[in-house]
Amino acid sequence: MNTLGKNIRLTSYGESHGIAVGAILDGFPAGFEIDQSFIQRQLDRRRPGQSALTTTRNESDIVTLQSGVFEGKTTGAPIHFQLLNKDSNSDDYDHLKNIYRPSHADYSYAMRYGTRDHRGGGRSSARVTAGWVAGGAMVQDFLFKNHQINVSAYVTQIGSIHFESYDESFLRSSIDESIVRCPNADSTQKMIEAVQLAKAQKDSLGGVIKLVISGVPAGIGNPVFDKLSASLAHAMMSINAVKGFEIGGGFSLSSKKGSEVNDSFVNDGGDIKTKSNFSGGIQGGISNGMDIVCNVAFKPTSTIGVTQQTVDSEFQSVALSATGRHDPCVVPRAVPIVETMAALVIGDYLINNC
Amino acid sequence: MNTLGKNIRLTSYGESHGIAVGAILDGFPAGFEIDQSFIQRQLDRRRPGQSALTTTRNESDIVTLQSGVFEGKTTGAPIHFQLLNKDSNSDDYDHLKNIYRPSHADYSYAMRYGTRDHRGGGRSSARVTAGWVAGGAMVQDFLFKNHQINVSAYVTQIGSIHFESYDESFLRSSIDESIVRCPNADSTQKMIEAVQLAKAQKDSLGGVIKLVISGVPAGIGNPVFDKLSASLAHAMMSINAVKGFEIGGGFSLSSKKGSEVNDSFVNDGGDIKTKSNFSGGIQGGISNGMDIVCNVAFKPTSTIGVTQQTVDSEFQSVALSATGRHDPCVVPRAVPIVETMAALVIGDYLINNC
Amino acid sequence: MNTLGKNIRLTSYGESHGIAVGAILDGFPAGFEIDQSFIQRQLDRRRPGQSALTTTRNESDIVTLQSGVFEGKTTGAPIHFQLLNKDSNSDDYDHLKNIYRPSHADYSYAMRYGTRDHRGGGRSSARVTAGWVAGGAMVQDFLFKNHQINVSAYVTQIGSIHFESYDESFLRSSIDESIVRCPNADSTQKMIEAVQLAKAQKDSLGGVIKLVISGVPAGIGNPVFDKLSASLAHAMMSINAVKGFEIGGGFSLSSKKGSEVNDSFVNDGGDIKTKSNFSGGIQGGISNGMDIVCNVAFKPTSTIGVTQQTVDSEFQSVALSATGRHDPCVVPRAVPIVETMAALVIGDYLINNC
Amino acid sequence: MNTLGKNIRLTSYGESHGIAVGAILDGFPAGFEIDQSFIQRQLDRRRPGQSALTTTRNESDIVTLQSGVFEGKTTGAPIHFQLLNKDSNSDDYDHLKNIYRPSHADYSYAMRYGTRDHRGGGRSSARVTAGWVAGGAMVQDFLFKNHQINVSAYVTQIGSIHFESYDESFLRSSIDESIVRCPNADSTQKMIEAVQLAKAQKDSLGGVIKLVISGVPAGIGNPVFDKLSASLAHAMMSINAVKGFEIGGGFSLSSKKGSEVNDSFVNDGGDIKTKSNFSGGIQGGISNGMDIVCNVAFKPTSTIGVTQQTVDSEFQSVALSATGRHDPCVVPRAVPIVETMAALVIGDYLINNC
Repeated sequence: MNTLGKNIRLTSYGESHGIAVGAILDGFPAGFEIDQSFIQRQLDRRRPGQSALTTTRNESDIVTLQSGVFEGKTTGAPIHFQLLNKDSNSDDYDHLKNIYRPSHADYSYAMRYGTRDHRGGGRSSARVTAGWVAGGAMVQDFLFKNHQINVSAYVTQIGSIHFESYDESFLRSSIDESIVRCPNADSTQKMIEAVQLAKAQKDSLGGVIKLVISGVPAGIGNPVFDKLSASLAHAMMSINAVKGFEIGGGFSLSSKKGSEVNDSFVNDGGDIKTKSNFSGGIQGGISNGMDIVCNVAFKPTSTIGVTQQTVDSEFQSVALSATGRHDPCVVPRAVPIVETMAALVIGDYLINNC
Repeated sequence: MNTLGKNIRLTSYGESHGIAVGAILDGFPAGFEIDQSFIQRQLDRRRPGQSALTTTRNESDIVTLQSGVFEGKTTGAPIHFQLLNKDSNSDDYDHLKNIYRPSHADYSYAMRYGTRDHRGGGRSSARVTAGWVAGGAMVQDFLFKNHQINVSAYVTQIGSIHFESYDESFLRSSIDESIVRCPNADSTQKMIEAVQLAKAQKDSLGGVIKLVISGVPAGIGNPVFDKLSASLAHAMMSINAVKGFEIGGGFSLSSKKGSEVNDSFVNDGGDIKTKSNFSGGIQGGISNGMDIVCNVAFKPTSTIGVTQQTVDSEFQSVALSATGRHDPCVVPRAVPIVETMAALVIGDYLINNC
Repeated sequence: MNTLGKNIRLTSYGESHGIAVGAILDGFPAGFEIDQSFIQRQLDRRRPGQSALTTTRNESDIVTLQSGVFEGKTTGAPIHFQLLNKDSNSDDYDHLKNIYRPSHADYSYAMRYGTRDHRGGGRSSARVTAGWVAGGAMVQDFLFKNHQINVSAYVTQIGSIHFESYDESFLRSSIDESIVRCPNADSTQKMIEAVQLAKAQKDSLGGVIKLVISGVPAGIGNPVFDKLSASLAHAMMSINAVKGFEIGGGFSLSSKKGSEVNDSFVNDGGDIKTKSNFSGGIQGGISNGMDIVCNVAFKPTSTIGVTQQTVDSEFQSVALSATGRHDPCVVPRAVPIVETMAALVIGDYLINNC
Repeated sequence: MNTLGKNIRLTSYGESHGIAVGAILDGFPAGFEIDQSFIQRQLDRRRPGQSALTTTRNESDIVTLQSGVFEGKTTGAPIHFQLLNKDSNSDDYDHLKNIYRPSHADYSYAMRYGTRDHRGGGRSSARVTAGWVAGGAMVQDFLFKNHQINVSAYVTQIGSIHFESYDESFLRSSIDESIVRCPNADSTQKMIEAVQLAKAQKDSLGGVIKLVISGVPAGIGNPVFDKLSASLAHAMMSINAVKGFEIGGGFSLSSKKGSEVNDSFVNDGGDIKTKSNFSGGIQGGISNGMDIVCNVAFKPTSTIGVTQQTVDSEFQSVALSATGRHDPCVVPRAVPIVETMAALVIGDYLINNC
């Protein structure tokens, strides 16, 4: 339930306000030199407090690797990534103990388990994705260095601001120049303003992240229930606040004719390519060598300052207006999470340490 | 790879033009009285040749249960559902043996396996979903009879024709009155015309199916990598031609503010409900007791009569215009497949025969 | 529950007196030329009626491959092996419908499922191993042809007759010369006499099968819960009537000193070998390149003609003396089953069709 | 690979001389009050330095629960059990860096991974079982308190000293009175002397542990590849130094006649029991309500002070005599490990937190 993958397996643990969050990465090949700076950079891109647009909870998110490493290299044994929780103000949450916040997982967790750690959302908090990113970053690094596969994500929409572009691949530097992680200065400015406005209104915004995976060779994936596209959907839908997933042309294909969106194969100087890429790099659940391109939809942050009506565990109506620390828009911080999940999926198919 | 589920497991086998297609359903509870007519009805809704809008391949799709059944009831042993292939004209496909058809899985399969059964798409054909529907229908029947859970799907879009409605639940009879499985006479008429036009143009159309699951109690699902929403996404993306999935408000939430789409809890005469259902019945990966509502996007059928350029396995350019039997739009026939996959997912969480 | 393996997966179905027994083999590599004669030979070594010492139930056990094969080669798709049941006299079992036979699975199945197919033992019958052998034989053939791994088993004990030998490897021909599958004429004669005596006494015998797998390279297996030795134990304990498993020196090591049974490494002309093989070819759960050697203990057949007291489902005492067809000793017929399970386990580690 | 179980899942990490060892227990039910004293007691029974007969490595083995617990109770979220390594003298192992010790996993790990953490055996060390025991103890406690299932193990053999008894169940107090964990004063004395003699001779001894699980209701287990007996075998063979497993009469049944060892059912005052228990409480892979009884065979400790010849990674012959800290006989310390593994297996079938 808390393990992702079959060959490369990430097992997650931890809660928002517990002692630690972390993950065990199992199945990772032996002999890989650990680049802790890459892992840390991905964690830094995810961590709270990184810009004026994010929550003020301040976690340094320094990761410790407690096993599976010897003399700077992996040994093939499971690797435990641990991040201690430091800046957790559990008292901020006391008044929420018995309240079912709108569009949070309070009620569904209560029904599922009969009990819950309400502090900061407990297990349902996006805090736990720090452990995912730690483990996934190492797989991402491995894919890049050993397989020349580049997993990259960026923001294409925040609220009603859309960034559309003919190009789909961007340098990480141009993405990270933008504090909303949109590789376009003009859209970035508008997105920042949109987030600032939402924040001022004590409201929140959602958005869309585009995922582009380049360098995956043709022939990766398995029919019929282990399709690469299905595994990507599963992984993305596992991320907090994600409500939609599409690959290639996605929903837009539903209103097109076959003749408009079929991807013809062409001989591109001895390589087989497709002229268009409405398939998003995957056909019949198996990669065709083109870029794998997906969109991941995030709903607006459920925690808002605007007063809302809801009920408590006694079914009594209560008014609620959030005062704790929270992000008006989580989408920029979710970029490394999307990359992590994609890397874990691709790694699960490509790497077999059996 | 060809098995779906953990507790209720469906293992699929077969190809378009092989001896048989089928599935083994494992983990199904003992003592359930088999209603073969329900299974057959779902198969009939999926089978080719059921209306003038579908392929002319004529398969009766009569299923045989070869194990796991004793005196009309399940025994807890695995159930083998077998459907013999009858009307397969393999010769129709000889000219395609070495051709990589646009947006089909020919090339990706060839890269994956080095070989492929090209006849009728082989393993990548939607023919194999007949086995899924046979096994899934029994789970669907079980969920309805033993858990009062109703899994229902219908068509909301074909090509540019959209059916929008405030109501989300429809009677199966009103859905099946329509040969495109849209529970609205006016939209049905427009959709039929759209398909007929596409067929006349030797072209194809895609569409969208809405899935509504009612009666799922609150508390079904598991964080963090076993979310009910993630499993639904995985299952739907496993269906041939599906390119997008969204739950509740889905992609439309990305442009909304939290205050607009948060689902407030209310006391509804002693039950907890939400005022709106932008969450689509799932919060934090766990059901909240509201209807589970998803949209599944299908691309247009890849096989079209319009002449297309592509390449063969020698990388030579070839012109291709399909003459075999195929559907101008598979979406109406996919309705029972969507239901099947949903039933298998819900059953996997709810039923534990351990 | 009815699937074995992670990479190479065998899913079993069928009952003793149902329509068919069979298996789906998933994950098998593409492009392997099918040698149906090898599969059939293994089935023939398992089938009833093969000698005067076995049950008189007569099944030809001809297997049909219904999927995953194209032009004589595997395609990478799941392969369905089907064997129809023919000579099943269900009426013979009517009087047993409500009786819990001693040391059979009647009572435990009834408690597990609330119902059971009593005919011929239903799902608990060794008849279902025919499907395992069909699928496993193909893996065994693959391991031999593509990896030069030889999986071989033979009988070392029936009742009180032991065959002990310094050599552990024998040619299959010398094993199959013996109708009890013991590669020694003298022991064979004594074993035959023991079985004939047991049969005359309306009684039954157990025995031990030795499994020798040669050619497995060093480095196969995974700590800590995926040890090759643990997987072999699991697979062997899955065979009907098996009650014990040991590897290398096994139980005898418990009374030895470390200095007596440690396996020293030696340089054998540039290869690393061990001087002795008390480890049975596996250390720390991983192969060390020496022969993998295991013993598998079978209890005597539970069905006997001798009158026994037991109870029925109303808890009433009943006297029972078997009159149906049964083997006085199943051990010789279990030899190909032991090989099958071993091949499936080794294949699961070695072959990765991911 | 480092995860055991399907419903109750234990994921293990850590090495002998790393920062920590630990485990994540996933799938554990919510709302269970944690009895840390029980967990600690099981850890104390396993820890080194507990008696004069064990290694002098001194680890307090205090466990920290870092997640999944709130206000003293489980929440249903994964529970991380962590034990820091303290008394690890890695320098003691420098001279072993390139040596393949006889009957250790040095060579097989080197072949498997190309590298290894040689310090104290690294990942292959029994040190990692501390994490298993921490997690497993909680399941054992749960089974006892919520299901009245008692998992108990004790030593029946060390070297050539056997303890045989008509009774199979003993109080934990009578087992723990004995520093070799044999519930018989006379046998205990002989076993202690045998271990002391082996220690004086710089040699080592193996032994046998009997496992008795009482209170398991009839009907637990699943055919055909998920047999309770097969899962127990797998779990026990996962323990370091285990080379054999048998259930009920085990290997001794192979030389018996059916009429001698069939377990007749009897009406025992309204309950169904068997007169004898040669089946060891499991028939057809499913419990029959009788005590589940198994024997687990341990080889002698591979590390001995006696000088041995072996080779190094350059294939050069070297003489080796262990000087580090080690146990002359690990069997007494393995008793809580056997209990842990049994509890995890039974819990995996019985508890379903789905």
